[in-house]
Amino acid sequence: MSAIRKLIVDGEFEMTRGTLQSPTIAYETWGCLNESGNNAVLIFTGLSPTAHVASSIDDPSSGWWEDMVGPDKPIDTDRYFVVCINSLGSCFGSTGPASINPATGEHYRLSFPILCLEDIANSGALVLDHLGIDSLHAVVGASMGGMTSLAFALLHPDRCCGLVSISSAARSLPFSIAIRSLQREIIRKDPAWADGEYDFAAGPVTGMRLARKLGMLSYRSATEWAERFGRERATDQPAVSHPFGIDFEVESYLEAHANRFVGTFDANCYLYLSRAMDLFDAADHGGSLETGLKRIDLERALIIGVETDFLFPVQQQEELAVTLKKNLKDVEFHRLASIQGHDSFLVDMDRFRPAVASFF
Amino acid sequence: MSAIRKLIVDGEFEMTRGTLQSPTIAYETWGCLNESGNNAVLIFTGLSPTAHVASSIDDPSSGWWEDMVGPDKPIDTDRYFVVCINSLGSCFGSTGPASINPATGEHYRLSFPILCLEDIANSGALVLDHLGIDSLHAVVGASMGGMTSLAFALLHPDRCCGLVSISSAARSLPFSIAIRSLQREIIRKDPAWADGEYDFAAGPVTGMRLARKLGMLSYRSATEWAERFGRERATDQPAVSHPFGIDFEVESYLEAHANRFVGTFDANCYLYLSRAMDLFDAADHGGSLETGLKRIDLERALIIGVETDFLFPVQQQEELAVTLKKNLKDVEFHRLASIQGHDSFLVDMDRFRPAVASFF
Repeated sequence: MSAIRKLIVDGEFEMTRGTLQSPTIAYETWGCLNESGNNAVLIFTGLSPTAHVASSIDDPSSGWWEDMVGPDKPIDTDRYFVVCINSLGSCFGSTGPASINPATGEHYRLSFPILCLEDIANSGALVLDHLGIDSLHAVVGASMGGMTSLAFALLHPDRCCGLVSISSAARSLPFSIAIRSLQREIIRKDPAWADGEYDFAAGPVTGMRLARKLGMLSYRSATEWAERFGRERATDQPAVSHPFGIDFEVESYLEAHANRFVGTFDANCYLYLSRAMDLFDAADHGGSLETGLKRIDLERALIIGVETDFLFPVQQQEELAVTLKKNLKDVEFHRLASIQGHDSFLVDMDRFRPAVASFF
Repeated sequence: MSAIRKLIVDGEFEMTRGTLQSPTIAYETWGCLNESGNNAVLIFTGLSPTAHVASSIDDPSSGWWEDMVGPDKPIDTDRYFVVCINSLGSCFGSTGPASINPATGEHYRLSFPILCLEDIANSGALVLDHLGIDSLHAVVGASMGGMTSLAFALLHPDRCCGLVSISSAARSLPFSIAIRSLQREIIRKDPAWADGEYDFAAGPVTGMRLARKLGMLSYRSATEWAERFGRERATDQPAVSHPFGIDFEVESYLEAHANRFVGTFDANCYLYLSRAMDLFDAADHGGSLETGLKRIDLERALIIGVETDFLFPVQQQEELAVTLKKNLKDVEFHRLASIQGHDSFLVDMDRFRPAVASFF
């Protein structure tokens, strides 16, 4: 059973660097919009999740942020009308490179326009129009979703009272760009990618697996792995493995993650979303980060970062908080001591639940 | 003109996990052994360098540590007899997987025995025998070379008075293992690797290029790149590049590094040396790190680490220094504030020269 709802945009959708004809935006909702229409919370996701942030009557399967969203959870669906969208450019219901271009009857693939996070933010605004929501109680996002939330606040300053930005940044810095650029190149260099013209039933499986492993390296932390794996040898491997097979538990762990990822995400969609993160820079909205962020008009903002995150270093969340504070009264910054790196918001719930609950 | 000298081992060379028939160990020397034979310094290299650590009359080209080794340099070749060996398993004169197996007349390739850093250390001891050096003033190494130096001190405690270990560790931890394991997998998954049976004139160029880029990510630091590149766009690229081509200066930098690396290093040699680092653990010499390091009998040790190094985190150098101090009187630990990450010992010479000079 699916809880996915779809908005088919009427006519052309103007993107930052192109146009889409009648794209679909997939989303899910939880709870009810109150009479004054001021209890809506919009969640933008990271690169790979679907819109299924939490279970519901229509889809009782666990969501990707099940501990955070639901009745009596920090984002309480008994109090708030929660909307989560599948990003434009993704492959879980929304239009992306794996979708059919109605003008040609063929899949977009690399003919999909260059994607910017601003486009995903604007597609969220269309969903709000459709649902009759003028202004949000808060726009919320972690990782790429935090950047998209910031883009939303920049582009629609009259439509959100609050912002919750988690393990995110106001722009991508070269180290993160280098990691993502290398992931994309690993995928593109897989002969099975075939310049994006792969068979959807197969595709660049090897490239996606390797890119996922590099992703896992950037999502976690050396500290966590030292505690968790140490120098433990893999136990699920034959005693005499390939000369360069799996020796260590950490290699087995990466292998398992790569295996789970493959087949769930379209390679071209991955490339577009990954690059959209690199391209994002709040300074593009005003010449500098400070003048860009001046456009933002919020009652409250909560910025959360994690000390062991090296994909979105905590200094970047601090920079965002400090810059927002120059123009906004109520900006709170939480620096969490989680050891799970960038992924902490998905796993270290004992630290993240109270931090997010403090806002709601 | 080359300064490389070669020792051809007479008969069998016992490795930790196999045997080699009459391997060659390539090395270079600088300066002269004094009459008491107590001024020798042995340098083990990182994964990729040759034995050419510095220029000499026989080979005036710059060495890979030119600023550190030479007349009036911190490791002063007017005072010390400096020996640098090309690691066993490498491809710059010493026997490795790219060499011919005399027993078969074929290249070793994957039939080369599993390589351990202890084997490289023992091959260095044979070079000392050959040169008539009983005991070293110091054994010196950075990165993998620091691990090999530690292995030498563990296996030949009566043959070295001093140890200088730079940006290294007493064992590999899972984060570093994961990075190197992924590099190896990227090479192995390149169809041109052909299970190690590639044509030496071609080989897995794409895999080696991608692995080198991942290497550069692990050798440098986010801080350095943020200062150096920021969000600068690449200028040497066509204005309208491939949809996933090079946008940013940092991508152009990685591309240049990958281009320089390809063709210089044999892929199978890379795989063997990389894995040897993962396998190294000083605790294997005694059941625990502490009992292992008790075997070491040194007059002095200098341990240097860099705060921004995340491949060999400074905590690991500190652990090594603290553990050595339990049994040795004179152990000095330098924690340097270089921003260039693991590679700092090659580039931040203003910090590294005085740190190393303090020992010599």
